[in-house]
Amino acid sequence: MPSPFVTRVKLALAFKGLSFEDVEEDLRSKSELLLVSNPVHKKVPVLIHNGKPICESLVILEYIDEAFSGTGPSLLPADPHHRAVARFWAAYIHEQVVAQFVQSIRGKTEEDKAEGIKQTFAAMETLEGALRDCSKGEGLFFGGGSVGLVDVLLGSLLSWLKAAEVISGTKYFDPVKTPLLAAWMERFSELAKAALPEVERVLEFSNMLAMAAAAAAAAASEN
Amino acid sequence: MPSPFVTRVKLALAFKGLSFEDVEEDLRSKSELLLVSNPVHKKVPVLIHNGKPICESLVILEYIDEAFSGTGPSLLPADPHHRAVARFWAAYIHEQVVAQFVQSIRGKTEEDKAEGIKQTFAAMETLEGALRDCSKGEGLFFGGGSVGLVDVLLGSLLSWLKAAEVISGTKYFDPVKTPLLAAWMERFSELAKAALPEVERVLEFSNMLAMAAAAAAAAASEN
Repeated sequence: MPSPFVTRVKLALAFKGLSFEDVEEDLRSKSELLLVSNPVHKKVPVLIHNGKPICESLVILEYIDEAFSGTGPSLLPADPHHRAVARFWAAYIHEQVVAQFVQSIRGKTEEDKAEGIKQTFAAMETLEGALRDCSKGEGLFFGGGSVGLVDVLLGSLLSWLKAAEVISGTKYFDPVKTPLLAAWMERFSELAKAALPEVERVLEFSNMLAMAAAAAAAAASEN
Repeated sequence: MPSPFVTRVKLALAFKGLSFEDVEEDLRSKSELLLVSNPVHKKVPVLIHNGKPICESLVILEYIDEAFSGTGPSLLPADPHHRAVARFWAAYIHEQVVAQFVQSIRGKTEEDKAEGIKQTFAAMETLEGALRDCSKGEGLFFGGGSVGLVDVLLGSLLSWLKAAEVISGTKYFDPVKTPLLAAWMERFSELAKAALPEVERVLEFSNMLAMAAAAAAAAASEN
């Protein structure tokens, strides 16, 4: 499933150079393993390490950074203030940008969707400023010279952003207004190609969801 | 202001034995300092340390634990798996329990509010199980033998929970079903007395909000 939350974990494992077994989950018929591993939320992703499950994508990312601190680059910098800045932008994307983006796709009315696109657009300008500050000097990634937590969070949305632009026929950002971010998108997409879901796969998945919703609506209207 | 998000930070600073200057903020007329320190969200709490602002309560808690790792007890345990478990329950309270609790107070209809109370009630039973697991052996706090991140998160809601019970005339948890949690509430309230807002102050604040909402509704209906 091309879930951005799952993609976050795959990106982090890839950047750390850690190998893993990818167990696909059918969310229409959840496995016993998922229900036992994440009894509270019953959601993917779950990382099972040393036989113990870790749930919730942001918690998993921190866990990967701490449990494998000796392997590969770190997702978070060493300095407490820099760590706080990275966690601030990670929370911004997790709590705000994702919701605005979902509204742009699944808003109940066309007005709702337009508002979601507008807000995502504004968020991209805010993130342009963050990228300018975070990448001072080296200027390549939110993590500075290498990929960090914020790159993973925003990067996990890239395939969805591109798919949403295809579906809506609207741009979600303006390269002229956010040149650093536009260059970052190119750079990150290239670097993380293997761990990012293909845009076509996201489009197929979106079509499937839309058809399922239409079928459910049709079934409901028949009763 | 008796904000639970501000209380989180005050609790953490108190448990670490750190002194701080408490600058009250009038949210109807935000200070230049707040707007400059937290330009993205313009919200409290903000912790200013070494002249640099840290925003977002969960980010601040992690920062306090990391920047003052040599001072007082740690909010998070040392083992990566135990840290992940604590962060899981912290996120559960931050993202889910707070929303359910807010719904129980501010739900648009009486049905909405009743649903919020029901969900908060169920969450308390889930947290009873978490407390049983987290406090194995020592059995006093979510942090084990001493207060940790989860205690701070849930503890910051205690005065509001008591105030909500007064306002709604309904119990938000049943000590018979959640005996460990009930004992924890007593224990935590006693330990953290100085850092928790008084229930009367929360009630006054809620009355003020309700009156402001009623006045706004009356003004709107006059146009």
